[in-house]
Amino acid sequence: MSLSLSPAQIADLEDFAVTLARSAGEVILPLFRADHGLADKGALTGRAFDPVTEADKGAEAAIRKAIAARFPDHGVIGEEYGEDRPDAEFVWVLDPIDGTRAFISGLPLWTTLIGLRHRGTPVVGVIAQPFTGEYFVGSAQGARLLTDAGARVLRTRPCADLAQALTATTDPHLFTGREQEAYQRFHAAARLVRYGADAYAYALVAMGKLDVVVERGLKSWDVEAAVPLLAGAGGLVADWRGAPIGRSGGQMLIVGDAALLPAVTALLEPAATPTS
Amino acid sequence: MSLSLSPAQIADLEDFAVTLARSAGEVILPLFRADHGLADKGALTGRAFDPVTEADKGAEAAIRKAIAARFPDHGVIGEEYGEDRPDAEFVWVLDPIDGTRAFISGLPLWTTLIGLRHRGTPVVGVIAQPFTGEYFVGSAQGARLLTDAGARVLRTRPCADLAQALTATTDPHLFTGREQEAYQRFHAAARLVRYGADAYAYALVAMGKLDVVVERGLKSWDVEAAVPLLAGAGGLVADWRGAPIGRSGGQMLIVGDAALLPAVTALLEPAATPTS
Repeated sequence: MSLSLSPAQIADLEDFAVTLARSAGEVILPLFRADHGLADKGALTGRAFDPVTEADKGAEAAIRKAIAARFPDHGVIGEEYGEDRPDAEFVWVLDPIDGTRAFISGLPLWTTLIGLRHRGTPVVGVIAQPFTGEYFVGSAQGARLLTDAGARVLRTRPCADLAQALTATTDPHLFTGREQEAYQRFHAAARLVRYGADAYAYALVAMGKLDVVVERGLKSWDVEAAVPLLAGAGGLVADWRGAPIGRSGGQMLIVGDAALLPAVTALLEPAATPTS
Repeated sequence: MSLSLSPAQIADLEDFAVTLARSAGEVILPLFRADHGLADKGALTGRAFDPVTEADKGAEAAIRKAIAARFPDHGVIGEEYGEDRPDAEFVWVLDPIDGTRAFISGLPLWTTLIGLRHRGTPVVGVIAQPFTGEYFVGSAQGARLLTDAGARVLRTRPCADLAQALTATTDPHLFTGREQEAYQRFHAAARLVRYGADAYAYALVAMGKLDVVVERGLKSWDVEAAVPLLAGAGGLVADWRGAPIGRSGGQMLIVGDAALLPAVTALLEPAATPTS
């Protein structure tokens, strides 16, 4: 992928992507868990002070400002402020707070997602959890977890047996109809399923702690941060038929070990929708 | 409760309980996420190296050693090593790793639970998350969150309307039969339900981030750490009929605002089992 970028260029862009995630964290963290007590009414009703919206918008604005200063010719696609030069050679794809339900519940499982497309192909991905101080970053050159303690190489683990697999999905109630039937088959076959970790679960597959993630209804920014990170760690992002996906959202499947793919797609494929 | 203990005594015991949680964390943290890559097979099959069991046993041994050194006449009840003088005036009730499924999945939602009983009544409770460095401690004197950044007073928030309530349960699949029907009523009535946070969710009620937790099949150590923490923060630990509970496990309900109790028990009470 993107052979036209040199290893040094990719490393530089990875570093910059992490810098962007850190600047997002500086905006978000003061608002995380800030809405406790009486001031919280607005957060629940959406009528007054809404910390997650404030944090989402503020963080995306900070990221966009940093990109414009360093790479004024790059495009940006963000959940909050839409598209800006989406056909540029380089396009940043942003979700400042993935996992807003975790965020408003005080759970440290929300993440900041930053992906970079080069000529249409995702080449760098960051999944960051600023509260725990974890920055998962990857590209075709490899994947690392950066923390205050230093850098740790990320590698998915071998797991060819779904009955032994630790898995995750955002919420079992998100599946309906044929998708719910497919999910039930998956749930019955996996060793265990964890819920509510959203993109943090993708990072844990890269770390070799989880083996499979099954999702539906995703947006492109969910997928684009994951693809280079998982590729760098030895995993795979695919649709429910098992075909690798790059930019499309919708149904998604992440496996740490490609050997698991046939067992998982056998259960999900009857509910697979056409990839957009 | 336990009027025979002075405020200074309780404060001293709270400090000691936090010290115990920190010593548990020192044992557990090196084993958290340590089972990645090839060495992980044992963790999955239970046949070889099993980090969660190692961490559980090692942490409980460290806690018991510290109690024996400081308070040799105190009793201890622990998940790993059983009962030691359970009828002593002071009895420590321990679960070194609550949330083992989170632990083996790499999610920072497992906790160390430490409760202290005085003459049969829970008087001090700690819920600790050593990876995030959070130590939630409470007694009838109040509740606090201790982190590297300092201490923060914990207060539950007002929430009298279940349709506005942010809630949690360990796993919706743990409920069967009448309990599943009761849970479904609760799930439909609440604003949202988060899964898999185990006792970390109890601490988030104390913090005023979540409003209700519904659980079943608990052990005494799950309940005994929660009772003083929630009491100190202004919340309530009850059975599914709404009666306050102290030491019993089984079905449990935590509310941050007692005004929510009637709405929740109306849904759960048809499946309430006799309190042991």
